[in-house]
Order: sequence, then C-alpha cells, then structure tokens
Amino acid sequence: MGKKESIGIGLMGLGVVGSGVAKTLLEKEDAIAQQVGCPLKIKRILVRNPARKRTIEVSAQLLTTDPQQILSDPEIDIVIEVIGGETEAYEYIKEAILRKKHIVTANKEVISKHSLELFTLASKNKVDVRYEASVGGGIPLISPFKRDLLANNILAIHAIINGTTNYILTRMAKEGLDFDPALKQAQELGYAEANPANDIDGVDAAYKLAILATLAFRTEIHPDDIYYEGISRLNSRDFRYAREFGYAIKLLAIAKKEKRSIQVRVHPALVPEDLLLANVDGVFNAIQVEGDMVGRVIFYGRGAGSSPTASAVVADVIQVAQNIVLGLRPKPQLKLYKAKRLIPMSRIKTRFYVRLTAIDSPGVLAQISKILGDHFISIASVIQKETDKKSGTAEIVIMTHPAQESALQKALQRTAKLAVVKEIGNFIRVED
Amino acid sequence: MGKKESIGIGLMGLGVVGSGVAKTLLEKEDAIAQQVGCPLKIKRILVRNPARKRTIEVSAQLLTTDPQQILSDPEIDIVIEVIGGETEAYEYIKEAILRKKHIVTANKEVISKHSLELFTLASKNKVDVRYEASVGGGIPLISPFKRDLLANNILAIHAIINGTTNYILTRMAKEGLDFDPALKQAQELGYAEANPANDIDGVDAAYKLAILATLAFRTEIHPDDIYYEGISRLNSRDFRYAREFGYAIKLLAIAKKEKRSIQVRVHPALVPEDLLLANVDGVFNAIQVEGDMVGRVIFYGRGAGSSPTASAVVADVIQVAQNIVLGLRPKPQLKLYKAKRLIPMSRIKTRFYVRLTAIDSPGVLAQISKILGDHFISIASVIQKETDKKSGTAEIVIMTHPAQESALQKALQRTAKLAVVKEIGNFIRVED
Repeated sequence: MGKKESIGIGLMGLGVVGSGVAKTLLEKEDAIAQQVGCPLKIKRILVRNPARKRTIEVSAQLLTTDPQQILSDPEIDIVIEVIGGETEAYEYIKEAILRKKHIVTANKEVISKHSLELFTLASKNKVDVRYEASVGGGIPLISPFKRDLLANNILAIHAIINGTTNYILTRMAKEGLDFDPALKQAQELGYAEANPANDIDGVDAAYKLAILATLAFRTEIHPDDIYYEGISRLNSRDFRYAREFGYAIKLLAIAKKEKRSIQVRVHPALVPEDLLLANVDGVFNAIQVEGDMVGRVIFYGRGAGSSPTASAVVADVIQVAQNIVLGLRPKPQLKLYKAKRLIPMSRIKTRFYVRLTAIDSPGVLAQISKILGDHFISIASVIQKETDKKSGTAEIVIMTHPAQESALQKALQRTAKLAVVKEIGNFIRVED
Repeated sequence: MGKKESIGIGLMGLGVVGSGVAKTLLEKEDAIAQQVGCPLKIKRILVRNPARKRTIEVSAQLLTTDPQQILSDPEIDIVIEVIGGETEAYEYIKEAILRKKHIVTANKEVISKHSLELFTLASKNKVDVRYEASVGGGIPLISPFKRDLLANNILAIHAIINGTTNYILTRMAKEGLDFDPALKQAQELGYAEANPANDIDGVDAAYKLAILATLAFRTEIHPDDIYYEGISRLNSRDFRYAREFGYAIKLLAIAKKEKRSIQVRVHPALVPEDLLLANVDGVFNAIQVEGDMVGRVIFYGRGAGSSPTASAVVADVIQVAQNIVLGLRPKPQLKLYKAKRLIPMSRIKTRFYVRLTAIDSPGVLAQISKILGDHFISIASVIQKETDKKSGTAEIVIMTHPAQESALQKALQRTAKLAVVKEIGNFIRVED
C-alpha cells in the first residue's frame, strides 16, 4: 500500500461552523499535516449560494451547489457535514457512507434521530462516523462516554446544554428581567436566533440529551422519548423567590437510571446554589455525569459558536485522517445492548416549587394543604410574599417534599378551582 | 488468526488503587467482556506481603511476590502497574514492554520522568502505554489532550490537581484554621498521608503538571523544569484578607504559553472568587484548559481515591483489550515536535499580595512604596489591618500591579531591612 500523499476533504456547509472549520483547516494546514502524517486538502465546499459574501476567503473554484460534486468524487476521503437540519443532511450522510466516505458531523438532529441506522450502515461500509461537535461544542463529551468512562455504570446526567436559554436565564436572574426582554437582549447579541423556538422550547436540549443518554445507558434513546418543556413560563419573581430558598433556576437536561429503568427529561429546575451547576452562567454549558466508580465529573465550556464547534469537528477529522494514514480500521461504535425501559413523566418523583396568588385570609393555606395532602404531597416550607392590599390577595410560595408528577398536576388542577385561589402562577421541579 | 478466548491481565500492586481495579475487573466481568468481545482474566497479582489482610477477596493462588511471574508469563497481554513510586515500577514497566506486553499505569512519577523513553520503547515493541489514571483520578484529562483538543493551540492550563492540599486550603478558608490543625484534620480523615511532604510541598502537583504540559505543548516537560512551592507558609489571616479583596487561595498548577516560550509553575495563588476554579472545594480537582479555538474548558471531579482512579485504569484496560480483539495496532503516542523554551521563574510577571507587619506610624507606607517604586512595582491597593496597640505595630496588606518575580523578591529583601518593618508575613502570587 503506497503512502497517501494527501487526504481529501469534502465540506458540506459554509455557515457559522463551516467557516470556522474551513478557516482552521487552511490556517493550521502545516500543524495538522504534522499530526496526521500527510496534508488534508479541501477538495470541494457545498454552499447554497456561491455569490454570497463571506467572512472567510476561499477560492471560488472550491464552491459548488451540487452535493454530487462531493459525494461522487473518489478523491474525497472524509465528508464534513455542517449544514444542519434533518432531511438533506441525513440523505447526504447516508449516500456518503454508501460511497465509503468517512463522516464527521455536528448535526445533533440527524444523530439523535438516525444514529443506529447510520452507524450500522457505516460499519457495513467500514467507515467512521464521528459527531463530537453535536453536543456541547468543543467540550469533550462523546469521547468520554465512548472511552474514558467505559468502566462505569452511568447513574445520572444533569446538563446545561443550551447556551441560548442559559444566557436568558442568567439575565433574568442577575438583572431581574422578565422573559421577553431577556430574549430580546439575547437576540440582539446574536445568542438567540430570530426564530428561537427550538432553543427556548427545549427541543435543542432534547436532541443533545438523546445523544448523551444513548451513549450513557447503551440503549437507543430517541428525542421523542424525552419529555421537554421550555423556559418561557418563567417569571423574574420565580428567580427572586428561588434565591430566597437557596436555589438558582436552570434549564436542565436530565437522564437518570433507577434500578433498570431510565428517565429522560428537559425542563427548568431549581438547583441548589452551592452546586457548581448553579453557577454556570451566560452562554456556557456544563454537563455533570455521575458514574458508580468515578462519582460526579463535570465538563464545562462554550457549547456553541464557530470556533469552539470547529475545534471538535477538526479534532474528529484529524483522528479519522490519522487512522487512514496508519491503515487502522475505524473502531466500532458503542454497542447498544441494553433493553429500553423508560419511566413516563407522570410517574417521576421530585420536589416542587409552587407559586400562586390567593385571597389574603387565614383559612387559605389550610384549604391548599388539604388538597395537597389528599394527593399525598406534603409541604416542606411556605413563604407568603407581596400582599396586594388593594385586591386583598397575597402571593404564596410553597416548597413540597418529593411528590409524584401526576399527583402534583392533579392537586394543582383542584387548587386552581378553589374560590380563594386567584391564579397558579407557576410550578417548577427541584433537582437536589 | 484465531479469535482470542480471553485476555490475560497481570496486576502489579494491590493497595488502594489495585484493590479498586481488581474489584472492578471481578465484579463487572460480564459487562466488560461484552464491551471487549472476550473476557479479561486476572492471571497474577504482585503484592509485597501475601499474608496481609485485605478489603478485597482474591484467590490466594493469584498472589505472588515475584514480578517475574507476571513479566515472563506469555499468557499475560496487559500489565497494570499500580504499585506507585519510581524505580521498581519503572523497571517493571520497561521489562514488560520489552516482553511485548501492553501497559496501563497510574504512575505519575514514572510517566512524568520517563515517558519519552518508555513511549519510544513501546512503539518499537508495538505495544500501548496508557496512563489516564496518572492525573486527576477518573477525570478524563490525558485523552482530551490526545484526541479532543487536537485542533487547538493550547494557551494555558490552570489546575487544582492535588486533593490533599485543596482539602486543607478549604478547611483553612471556611473554618479559619491555620495550616497545622487543618493538616491534622486531613490526616485523620485519610485525605493526607502520615508523611504528607509530597502533597503539601507541591511535588505531586508538579509531576502531574509535567504530564499535562508535555501533552499540551508537544515538548517534553520534566518535573525538574517546574518551579514548585507548597502551602505550609499560608496563614488563616491570608485567607481572610484575600477574601476582602475578592479572592480565594488555591494551590495552582500553571502552564502558559507566551509567544514561543512556556512557563510552568506550582504555587499557592489568589484566584478571583467569581471564577469556577475558586469554588472548587474539598478533595475535588478541576483542570481548566484554554485553547485558541475551544476557549476555556474545565474538567472537574474526584482526583484520587480507589474507585475514581480504578475508573480510569479499567477504561484504559478495556480500550487496550478492544484493540487486541479487533487486531488494531496501538495508535502512536502524541508527537513531541516542538522545541522547549522555558521562561525562568525570576522573569515571570504576576500581581502580588504582600502581607507585612510594621510600626504604626505615618511615614511607613511612604518608605515601603519608595522601595517598591525603585523596583518598578506599583501598588494597586493597600489595607491596614489589626493594629496592635501594645507593640505599636500594624499589619499592612498590599496588592501590587503586575511585577516581575525577581524585582519583587529584591524589593521584599530591602523592605525587610527597613527599621520600621517588623516582619514580611507572606507574599502570594495572583492569577487573574
């Protein structure tokens, strides 16, 4: 076998991440060649509009709007997919694998929905599929599960894996902003998209959690398996009251093993202020993994952005290229040999924070605790806040002991119907 | 090539870490066999005293006091070295490599002092040497440098990598203890050894920093290259004053690149309280890595202990075993292709915290600032503390602007000779 003179790269996508990848491959060409053993050459870049003005200078000859220019080029060894979205990207990846090209992707949606099919196909075609950039930007996360934590029985994941929502929550907490102005601020700074639904509704976090939970629990967790809830219900007062109880509010992606069953969910949660997770602010991500041997480990860093994401993509590319040069077959993907047993959201037990507005009179709390008691929910503490003399109402904040989700939902429905209760302001789960 | 029926393991050492490793290999035998593709069998365990009572039950027939029983056994494919210390371990590892056995070790001293020789030997003999457990227990650290951060130019490492000292410093900070009682407490809890010198003097942290800096900067950093200083000079008052300025005090292992030169040092440092590193308490470790692409990433967890360290050892063993089963040659170690240019400690610039006792009279500060000024050191702020009416002295705490180490040392020597100065209490570098 002759020594390879260079390794051909096909880059699909030249947006925020793609530009970062192209820039790195070009600027660090020599250092990368030294690490790989031969140079990497970008042969072709797939773009939607070749005429578009870009922040990066690439030869116009490299650009194409035709995916076949990459997929059918025998000189392309590695396809980097950073166009995002589901259908197109999925089709391209699939075809590239069939044409025996290695894949490096940052696509959380495709990996979370189609990994099993793609990995099986890749294995048949003896090519590698790497996706470190799909979760947590440049923070090593896929690789720790695949390698460093292999000896562990993973017990739980608690993760802040969406920078947009964490930025908004941080502004709400630190500046007392309500949701809408905080979102607007994030949009102005480029931390939230014009259509921010995927981020603020928890969908993006659910994709990422599906990927991590699949690796952690060795069973295919699909995004549809995950209960998710966004942050738009939160109010600046919730942050103030939570702080009085000693908690921060974070959008958490949670995966836990209970005996042989698994729970997977994404929702805002009260997190004790003395935990490191509670102190992860702004656009940063932090992923806490609990293993039976390692205990709690936390991985922290920037979970998005051109350069951090390109860091993960290019590291994957270098490793694939090293294997090509060394003539090493790709290692198989992690075996998913466990049965999938999911606990439905209704059966999950947590403590709850409940905020409601009621008539400011002595018997009210008794009526509410009676209902909670009927559903086997006991109260850990209560504070009465902000009495409104004019309307004769008071805001009451209740922290419960652990209670089942379905019980709390039913109790709140009954509570809302009490004549003395004006409004259920909010309820938030607590993760201790 | 016939399929392997089992992979033979020789375990050297059955102390805290060795017991954890043996326990895991035995208790998780089935799960590990599933991941590897065939079972791992402990063939022999090297111990000093076979009669010793142990927390783990292993068949007496496995125990031996003769290293040759492991080194010359052709059925042993992987040698796990967890005896610690330098000379013996080094000799065993070397001989095992020559006999074509793969090595998994937790030995920071051997790896930090002999890695280049051992890696070269291993490469000639086509075997793997893995050492994830040598730094940070079960926290993935070696693997991120070797794989996930490959695209980065590493700019800096700031690490809390010694649990013993971090435990002591946490007690001093939270309970106002002085060094001696805090050390005693750590010893009683088993967090510090009877002879704690290696930990509290910074030697252990220097070994670990040498390993990380070698990987980060692609040049061989030897422990002798590293300036180190322990924590025994610290006083409970330093923690109190530091807090007034908004800082915590941590034993930091620091490696930084400045243009083409590198600085490597271990010493107590003032760390701004709002950094995550400042909030890493107790026996926990945290390693902050700054890369040109990824920005700052932090790895956090338990840096020592039987189970967390065994987590890293067994993960390495599983990966080596997977490669054996798949017939994959080990990947070469990271290439060290960069020239080593170290900045001597005397030329390093930091801000300084200086605590001194002087006569409580108006002209004193003028005399001290005059000397500092002579050495181009300017004062950022001063607080006068704890005036002692009886002796007519006051404690003065000075924060300087960035100054060169040698200049500060000279200025402090001159200051100590001032008639009005009773004592230089302490000086601590600041890492912003």
